[in-house]
Amino acid sequence: METAARSLVNRQVWLCSRPHGIPRAKNFAIRSAPIPACGNGQFVIRNEYLSVDPAMRGWIADTSTYWPRIEVGATMRAFSVGEVIESRNPRYEVGDKVMGIFGWQEYAAVDEAQVMRRVLENDLPLSAALGVLGLNGLTAYFGLLDVCRPKSGETVVVSTAAGAVGSAVGQIAKIKGCRTVGVTGGPEKVRQCLEEFGYDAAIDYKATDDLDAALAGACPDGIDCYFDNTSGAIHDAVMRQIRLHARIAICGTASFASWDPWNQGPRPERHLLVKRATMQGFLTTDFAHRYEEAIAHLAGWIRDGKLSYREDLLQGIEAAPGSIERLYSGANRGKLVIRL
Amino acid sequence: METAARSLVNRQVWLCSRPHGIPRAKNFAIRSAPIPACGNGQFVIRNEYLSVDPAMRGWIADTSTYWPRIEVGATMRAFSVGEVIESRNPRYEVGDKVMGIFGWQEYAAVDEAQVMRRVLENDLPLSAALGVLGLNGLTAYFGLLDVCRPKSGETVVVSTAAGAVGSAVGQIAKIKGCRTVGVTGGPEKVRQCLEEFGYDAAIDYKATDDLDAALAGACPDGIDCYFDNTSGAIHDAVMRQIRLHARIAICGTASFASWDPWNQGPRPERHLLVKRATMQGFLTTDFAHRYEEAIAHLAGWIRDGKLSYREDLLQGIEAAPGSIERLYSGANRGKLVIRL
Repeated sequence: METAARSLVNRQVWLCSRPHGIPRAKNFAIRSAPIPACGNGQFVIRNEYLSVDPAMRGWIADTSTYWPRIEVGATMRAFSVGEVIESRNPRYEVGDKVMGIFGWQEYAAVDEAQVMRRVLENDLPLSAALGVLGLNGLTAYFGLLDVCRPKSGETVVVSTAAGAVGSAVGQIAKIKGCRTVGVTGGPEKVRQCLEEFGYDAAIDYKATDDLDAALAGACPDGIDCYFDNTSGAIHDAVMRQIRLHARIAICGTASFASWDPWNQGPRPERHLLVKRATMQGFLTTDFAHRYEEAIAHLAGWIRDGKLSYREDLLQGIEAAPGSIERLYSGANRGKLVIRL
Repeated sequence: METAARSLVNRQVWLCSRPHGIPRAKNFAIRSAPIPACGNGQFVIRNEYLSVDPAMRGWIADTSTYWPRIEVGATMRAFSVGEVIESRNPRYEVGDKVMGIFGWQEYAAVDEAQVMRRVLENDLPLSAALGVLGLNGLTAYFGLLDVCRPKSGETVVVSTAAGAVGSAVGQIAKIKGCRTVGVTGGPEKVRQCLEEFGYDAAIDYKATDDLDAALAGACPDGIDCYFDNTSGAIHDAVMRQIRLHARIAICGTASFASWDPWNQGPRPERHLLVKRATMQGFLTTDFAHRYEEAIAHLAGWIRDGKLSYREDLLQGIEAAPGSIERLYSGANRGKLVIRL
């Protein structure tokens, strides 16, 4: 019945109004479109899982971001994973599993350039291709190993430590022999950090009124690496305790809803100078030529039981419009994915 | 007569009170001490030139700096260059020229660890060992080539562009095929930048009320590298115009007299993320193992007429107490050096 319904139309989630701040369910609507025709060189994907990512807020709202802003009326840009059901491209066959930017919709006729990677880990759940074996895991891998470059014995601090990216960062740092300290919000996430993701220490920033003291207690030797998903007060507290030659990877700025006007804060220049430290922004897609190297490691660590991940699974495309605000409510407990 | 007087006592400039802000002549006094005895493994230097450096303000004032703060009563820490006149160290002979941290004094009995380098470029003026062939030139060399890593055709912006470090940065960037843009204060320094140091464009930040527009005009393709000697408003304006994968070397923070309390400003995290840019503090002494490589290049460029430098020469140790404030008055026109 469901399969039959799917075969008739392509349901799409589109942006019907521009939000102020966090995108809400009311900013989206669902429409039915024809199943797209397969152009020359293209192939048609039937999406099986849609991704919900914090970056979506920026894609909708910001002018200063990596990708063109999504215009009102357009189908929402999103990562998804699905199966090729028709192909006019010799490199993609019916039955192939592919992950890429195929949008919040049931079907997509796509060009090769929209594919992020072909999913070959058939022994692992397909949905993982959107999380720990997708952009989240790749972001953790390159941001930690290439930007932070931790050495065994160093102290690595991670913000949004229980999140889809942060939890992978903490575990990879542990695999590399580091002391790992997670900063997260709420007792349940602290428990997750310690019990599921193996952090040596976890700080509930919402429960402490002295983050500096909490960090000093958790990082008695200072901080060598900081994987920054938040900016803001957590960033500032970490900066006050960096060690010589510290490396700070800027991955996200979740603590600010907007950068218009630009946010103010303590200047980092003097810290960076005195500590000969480095602060570097990075984007995972700059490492595209090394995805398979990273996926091989990530999949291996999952199979070896060294890399755990959590998913928060929503059911049906109807769940998509309200899913971004769920990310920001603190309610989700793992990588947020919509199963179609 | 002068030589005879020197041979009897060692005149030293010492810190007699801690300044608020910029160190003034009144914060120092001159005393006579015995010529120091040469301990085992030591050698005695007769200083010929004393250096005056912006970093001295930090050495005196700050608690958050690279070296221990200079205490009241101590002889002022300083780079100087002189000749070995007595040695109980087999690696240093009478007549050797050495540069290092020997203090604002006429004579110093020093350990090998105080030597920064042995001066072997006998065809070039000895005073250059404190500037373009000393910490200034080395700072320009490593900060530009190792931290900024400019490629031919890229745009390099330098603040305090006519200064002892900045002028070398601009010229080395030009040698490497970059478009060079200097930011400096006053029409005379703008003239120096363009006529003496070969900048493609120079901006008088004191004369413009729209630094953003001036930078945009001078850097039509945006800014790939920024050699930051100032922090503050110039830094912020540059950050707004960096290109993808920009590199910002933090060398100094001259626009702020103090970092207590910490200075506020626009947060760089979002810029760094969106532009995948890097901001890195560095200290020249971290590159000590590569000084001779750098000096060989710098000396070669001087001999080839590709690297010009200016000195502002003061006469006699009596000039030392007032020399730091001279640096900050904007009155000096080159590397400030005291000839003994």
